Amino acid sequence: MCELFAMSAGQPADVGDSLLRLMPRGGEIGPHADGWGVAYYEGRAARVFKEPAPAAESRLLPLLARHKLTSRAVIAHIRKANPAVFGRASANTHPFEREWNGRSWVFAHNGKLPDLDRGDDCPTGRYRPLGDTDSELAFCLIMNALVKATRLGADRLPPDQLVGIIWPVVEALAGLGEFNFILSDGEHLYAHAHTNLHVLHSRANGENVTLLATAPLTDEPWRRLPAGMIHVFGDGADVTLPHWSGGPAMPVGLMQAMHGARMVC
Amino acid sequence: MCELFAMSAGQPADVGDSLLRLMPRGGEIGPHADGWGVAYYEGRAARVFKEPAPAAESRLLPLLARHKLTSRAVIAHIRKANPAVFGRASANTHPFEREWNGRSWVFAHNGKLPDLDRGDDCPTGRYRPLGDTDSELAFCLIMNALVKATRLGADRLPPDQLVGIIWPVVEALAGLGEFNFILSDGEHLYAHAHTNLHVLHSRANGENVTLLATAPLTDEPWRRLPAGMIHVFGDGADVTLPHWSGGPAMPVGLMQAMHGARMVC
Repeated sequence: MCELFAMSAGQPADVGDSLLRLMPRGGEIGPHADGWGVAYYEGRAARVFKEPAPAAESRLLPLLARHKLTSRAVIAHIRKANPAVFGRASANTHPFEREWNGRSWVFAHNGKLPDLDRGDDCPTGRYRPLGDTDSELAFCLIMNALVKATRLGADRLPPDQLVGIIWPVVEALAGLGEFNFILSDGEHLYAHAHTNLHVLHSRANGENVTLLATAPLTDEPWRRLPAGMIHVFGDGADVTLPHWSGGPAMPVGLMQAMHGARMVC
Repeated sequence: MCELFAMSAGQPADVGDSLLRLMPRGGEIGPHADGWGVAYYEGRAARVFKEPAPAAESRLLPLLARHKLTSRAVIAHIRKANPAVFGRASANTHPFEREWNGRSWVFAHNGKLPDLDRGDDCPTGRYRPLGDTDSELAFCLIMNALVKATRLGADRLPPDQLVGIIWPVVEALAGLGEFNFILSDGEHLYAHAHTNLHVLHSRANGENVTLLATAPLTDEPWRRLPAGMIHVFGDGADVTLPHWSGGPAMPVGLMQAMHGARMVC
């Protein structure tokens, strides 16, 4: 499995302390030794750093953590290759990134999707995997659904519309295994709590900061996120609307448009 | 302006020495102090490291250079922001990367395109800039031309077809200023020599290695590449065909399909 970490903040904030707490779980006190990555948003673009090697042994990660890099949206991941055949490689290391409509989209996954057919390499989809993982293929399926549902050059999607579009894909993928993920466009974090994802809200210097993590990183009052829905965070606050759980408020047309994840390519 | 560096090799090779020679030109003995970046291909995927800060002062760049990272295709760049209004930002730092057909495509530019209309943000194109530079917009125009000319999920283009497709765009862009660039899909380097680009061939351990650079990095016999054409390198060797200069051998239909760079969006 793997561990996720993310941050949303009203003003640029430094996540160095959190990264230094995550680091030893990547091969020292935790088994996630097959890679690590961090994406820091700088406006519409993400700066992504990753290594297909243990976080706990990295010289780059502590350099980044102590560099006082600040951002309003960060996604990080430490990886345990599973199955091991999809081994250590940069292309298999989260977070993954693609450009869409002039913004970086970044994705990281905790869990596994053993029933996802990797053989079907999305031949007709705009986004295709660079590596071997179920995670990157799932990301491509989500992004392809967004492209398919929107007009080229259209304005940015409001979060409720975005969640409405991706929910059928997310639901289908979650049915193929375990699918906790965090997706971002730099403005919002979209966090799918399937089995295990924790949140910590705080206020620093009058600004909201939200941290997400697979397992709490501190003794503070982290809260387990309700499962089976996509939570949305922006400017450090929870902006999730109730109907984003995929309940009856979801437009029926969208559900009808869904014919299984593989056909969303 | 900026400086380009690239390497193609038959077997994975270490470019650390070259990067350490390039580094002081990024703010110490050269004026290219606004950012640096290196893309190392690992199979179909590129590992891209960049900082919007002087290479000469970077702690990360020497770490990479001495890390014994090996690759068969590398593209590096040191940047001098020009015009200065498109300032230091990760999104303005070369090389740029996009995924197409399951491969990373990487691009870096030396020169400037003052007559390229940045206001036209490629509203109908698949690839859109994340930053402000003429360089990234030019890259998007080239990639959009490739997408437009090929079927979704088609096989990889042979280099001669690829050059045939992008040549009209490249020629139009070169007419808008100065346009030395290196583009790669990890298998080939496509190097457009417009005004100034140098090459050095060597053989190490029986393998071909080709280095490209704006200005020679050593006292070895670097050669100025003939201008006005796209040179192609693969497995460390020059595999350019004569008609890739865009001469009469280019299919007439492709020339007719070209209505100026901005319409290729």
